[in-house]
Amino acid sequence: MYRTHNCGELRLTHLNQKVVLSGWVRRVRNAGGIIWIDLRDRYGITQLIMEEQYTTPELIQVAKSLGREFVIQTEGLVIERTSKNPKIPTGDVEVKVSKIKILNESKLPPFLIEDETDGGEELRMQYRYLDLRRSVVQQNLIMRHKVAQEVRAYMNSQAFLEIETPVLLKSTPEGARDFVVPSRMHAGEFYALPQSPQILKQLLMVSGYDRYYQIVKCFRDEDLRADRQPEFTQIDCEMSFVSQDDVLTMFEGLIKHVFKAIKQVDLPNFQRMTFADAMQNYGSDKPDLRFGMSFKYLTELAKNKGFKVFDEAEAIVGISVDGGAEFTRKQTDELTLFVQRPQVGAKGLVWVRYATDGTLKSSVDKFFTTEQLKEWAGLFGAKPGDMLLILAGGLNSTRKALCELRLEVGNRLNLRSKDVFKPLWVVDFPMFDVDEETGACASMHHPFTSPLWEDFDKIETEPASVRSSGYDMVMNGVELGGGSIRIHSKEVQRKIFRILGLSEEELQMQFGFLLEALDYGAPPHGGIAFGLDRLCTMLGGLDSIREFIAFPKNNAGRDVMMQSPSLLSDAQLKELYLRIEAEKVSK
Amino acid sequence: MYRTHNCGELRLTHLNQKVVLSGWVRRVRNAGGIIWIDLRDRYGITQLIMEEQYTTPELIQVAKSLGREFVIQTEGLVIERTSKNPKIPTGDVEVKVSKIKILNESKLPPFLIEDETDGGEELRMQYRYLDLRRSVVQQNLIMRHKVAQEVRAYMNSQAFLEIETPVLLKSTPEGARDFVVPSRMHAGEFYALPQSPQILKQLLMVSGYDRYYQIVKCFRDEDLRADRQPEFTQIDCEMSFVSQDDVLTMFEGLIKHVFKAIKQVDLPNFQRMTFADAMQNYGSDKPDLRFGMSFKYLTELAKNKGFKVFDEAEAIVGISVDGGAEFTRKQTDELTLFVQRPQVGAKGLVWVRYATDGTLKSSVDKFFTTEQLKEWAGLFGAKPGDMLLILAGGLNSTRKALCELRLEVGNRLNLRSKDVFKPLWVVDFPMFDVDEETGACASMHHPFTSPLWEDFDKIETEPASVRSSGYDMVMNGVELGGGSIRIHSKEVQRKIFRILGLSEEELQMQFGFLLEALDYGAPPHGGIAFGLDRLCTMLGGLDSIREFIAFPKNNAGRDVMMQSPSLLSDAQLKELYLRIEAEKVSK
Repeated sequence: MYRTHNCGELRLTHLNQKVVLSGWVRRVRNAGGIIWIDLRDRYGITQLIMEEQYTTPELIQVAKSLGREFVIQTEGLVIERTSKNPKIPTGDVEVKVSKIKILNESKLPPFLIEDETDGGEELRMQYRYLDLRRSVVQQNLIMRHKVAQEVRAYMNSQAFLEIETPVLLKSTPEGARDFVVPSRMHAGEFYALPQSPQILKQLLMVSGYDRYYQIVKCFRDEDLRADRQPEFTQIDCEMSFVSQDDVLTMFEGLIKHVFKAIKQVDLPNFQRMTFADAMQNYGSDKPDLRFGMSFKYLTELAKNKGFKVFDEAEAIVGISVDGGAEFTRKQTDELTLFVQRPQVGAKGLVWVRYATDGTLKSSVDKFFTTEQLKEWAGLFGAKPGDMLLILAGGLNSTRKALCELRLEVGNRLNLRSKDVFKPLWVVDFPMFDVDEETGACASMHHPFTSPLWEDFDKIETEPASVRSSGYDMVMNGVELGGGSIRIHSKEVQRKIFRILGLSEEELQMQFGFLLEALDYGAPPHGGIAFGLDRLCTMLGGLDSIREFIAFPKNNAGRDVMMQSPSLLSDAQLKELYLRIEAEKVSK
Repeated sequence: MYRTHNCGELRLTHLNQKVVLSGWVRRVRNAGGIIWIDLRDRYGITQLIMEEQYTTPELIQVAKSLGREFVIQTEGLVIERTSKNPKIPTGDVEVKVSKIKILNESKLPPFLIEDETDGGEELRMQYRYLDLRRSVVQQNLIMRHKVAQEVRAYMNSQAFLEIETPVLLKSTPEGARDFVVPSRMHAGEFYALPQSPQILKQLLMVSGYDRYYQIVKCFRDEDLRADRQPEFTQIDCEMSFVSQDDVLTMFEGLIKHVFKAIKQVDLPNFQRMTFADAMQNYGSDKPDLRFGMSFKYLTELAKNKGFKVFDEAEAIVGISVDGGAEFTRKQTDELTLFVQRPQVGAKGLVWVRYATDGTLKSSVDKFFTTEQLKEWAGLFGAKPGDMLLILAGGLNSTRKALCELRLEVGNRLNLRSKDVFKPLWVVDFPMFDVDEETGACASMHHPFTSPLWEDFDKIETEPASVRSSGYDMVMNGVELGGGSIRIHSKEVQRKIFRILGLSEEELQMQFGFLLEALDYGAPPHGGIAFGLDRLCTMLGGLDSIREFIAFPKNNAGRDVMMQSPSLLSDAQLKELYLRIEAEKVSK
């Protein structure tokens, strides 16, 4: 037996017990004839003690030979510490060692295995198995484990069935690029890895499973933006005989349950906001509601008053910053530079300072009178001490830029605490993303999303104005999940495919089996999928999903530890009937 | 709201309640002015009733228009049935319908949606979403859901962490063929889908996670034998600081827990048997212990007595069939034909009938005296009424053939009941499968399996005689899982790789990161993986894993519903730097 207890377990109640522990040597201290060893495992740290005067020279010799991260087994007596450590649960006791066995040695790790490590990102990813040994990382993965179990507990309690769907699927051109898998048995043919089990879960509803979920890996071959992974995990859910309200209530319940179980936080009831209102008031379909500063539209008041920038603008939009009058000139200059960054893309920033003494001063005093500025302040509902920040230009680009500015101001004023949670349902998404030049329609959610019936008569004449039953769950400006009520009518589904530009032949080839399934008694149904990686990141109060993935890939989609992807042998390629067509391949 | 109750919920306690139900029309009966509809969903069946004299003509009209598998919503009053149906939980009541709304129509399904269907395998797979609607299939998937939850409940209770490992991995040539995924970002390079997360779970042990599990999809590109799938689900587990005994105890506990929870069966303590004994006594590394008939070796008694077949045989091996003396001549002839089938491969069958009157008669009376036959019966421990069945030839081939014969006899005598469970650990597997001609060593389990230390000194000189710490869990002749204590020493691991024929360069390229990880404090560890599909099949008392997979592939690895795999577009191939090299590809 390698151990009687783990390294996080011993307390004063174990005094005078003979115990066996196994673990990693965190450090060895040697002072005045006494040697202390911190022994570490997943469960905690236990202090071992040896005194030269009571211990055999051989044992002392072994103890002195131990290096960091050596794996040892030790036997000894639990005794009370003379100098207790209240910071760790085992801090009242230590183990007086009578035996040590080295189970495995360790080279000196390339970086410190501590919460605060000296290893850079790349080195830690190369030695991810050592990075994963750090307690902070272990706590993240333990939390992820708990989140998954709590999700299942809730779903099971609501009569959902966890059903596995295939990973080797069929490639369909909708949405992002598929990862594909060449078939050896069928020359020239490929499977595709699922971007989501969307169609399969809908078929399960057609099959009468009523309530389905799955915590499942999904795959997208995208050019990786920051904090995306080629494989990611979804909490994928679907329900039959439901309205949108039924779905929102069910999954608001899920997220409340998880926050309560993991963080002991009682979330408030989720606000609901239409996509149109979210864009109007926050310039984003995932507004961060931890702070106010909703958009106000100055266009009527401030346009055509002789200030060229405003006069030429489609929209003049601003926010009022509570207490912002205290911003220094340097700070407003910084904000101006911020909005002028190419990623934000505004030409400039207009500010109006509403001083605590009631006076108004602005960057456009040449063009506007104090009376006019006062009128603006009235529109914003600003009070002395506030600052108006105003952008102008095209409606969409100005909203987008002002959204960035609002978030930046929120950051600067510490209004975006990781301990505050503002959940929100954004509903009534547009059905289509209509290309302004060509008029081509693309799905805003995906082609299986049902339109809102009250807009259905406009679907061919004014597709851009048709709303869908798509919804997103948003928290603190982050999209945690999204879904919709699906189309369960074959004729409607065919019509949507046609509006999306699929020919009858294409839709038969790609979605023929789905259309046929809708012919055999498909029930009304809808669902949602959450990003588990992102949910964990939100719960953990961190910024990157990588912190919650055991073996993540880097921004180039590469695993630098295993060195994958990698070349295949010629024999493997031949079996798959493949030849590589690339000049830049080096062997 | 689509429903107030589901179709399996209503009882006498709901009498006189107004309810709303939704579901599928299972059938409509119309007799003497009364219409009954069986309404079905996942939860059960509820009878609806309409009487022409109390119901509007419009409603009757709708009811008469309903076809099988139409999806309807109905409102009505729960009333007591005059003629109760004790076979279903809702059989005491029916719903007196006041409204029916057709939610979706259905074409007539291509086969009956009943437990006993008239659809053949291929048709049912093509319309799998309808096949999945049958109650027997739903019960299988519901059981699988429960099994997965019970597995997790046990593992969580034992402090295991569920940790996800990547699906996009690195191709390594060990074991079966990998499925591979071409990388678009890295021209000419490929990921591989995991055959198992073996190396990653070992790295998690190096990382100190101590106890890991995952219910995870694995992939093997094999030529599919009966009842194999290219993707399958493993319950994958690993533990640190454990001996073989610790692992066996832990996972015996898991399987006992699952059988108790799912089938209310208390499994006995698991027998343990060495691989050598299993081969010696049953000719198989997965013996079916639901019945006896272990092998007896007649070689010494019966060889060189003048019967040429025996005299030339390496081994003469037999079983004694309890009560087998009653076999007719026709039956022994059938058994002879059975063993002569090419899949079994024996030349012939020798039988000795030990009649109830104590006389002995055999198919080799010309060569052996009654005294000799009596001696044989003594060796077998046979008694009057039994029958000896004896094969002779090479040791391995004879054992294999006799194993098949034993199972066949077990089948004929109904000794292999699906309700009896005989679990077993087979231990001490050989380390290597040594090619008799070339002497080349292949791993019996996999290259990470530790040898038994008492055999380690023979590893280079007599590799065929070295036993490993590999173990299999076997039940009723089926392998449910297998695992081993792993190698945690870099030097031992390197030595094994070299014995397996990898050059230093190959092992660095393929397993360099693993060897390096073993250098940084790898703990002793071991684990196991169970086939979830197979476990469910055992629990469900069925023969094919497909019965427990929502969307299985056929024997050619094809999904006949979605028609995958399928061709890619030229644009997709070009993005992946691939060209198809096959004449037989048709577009």
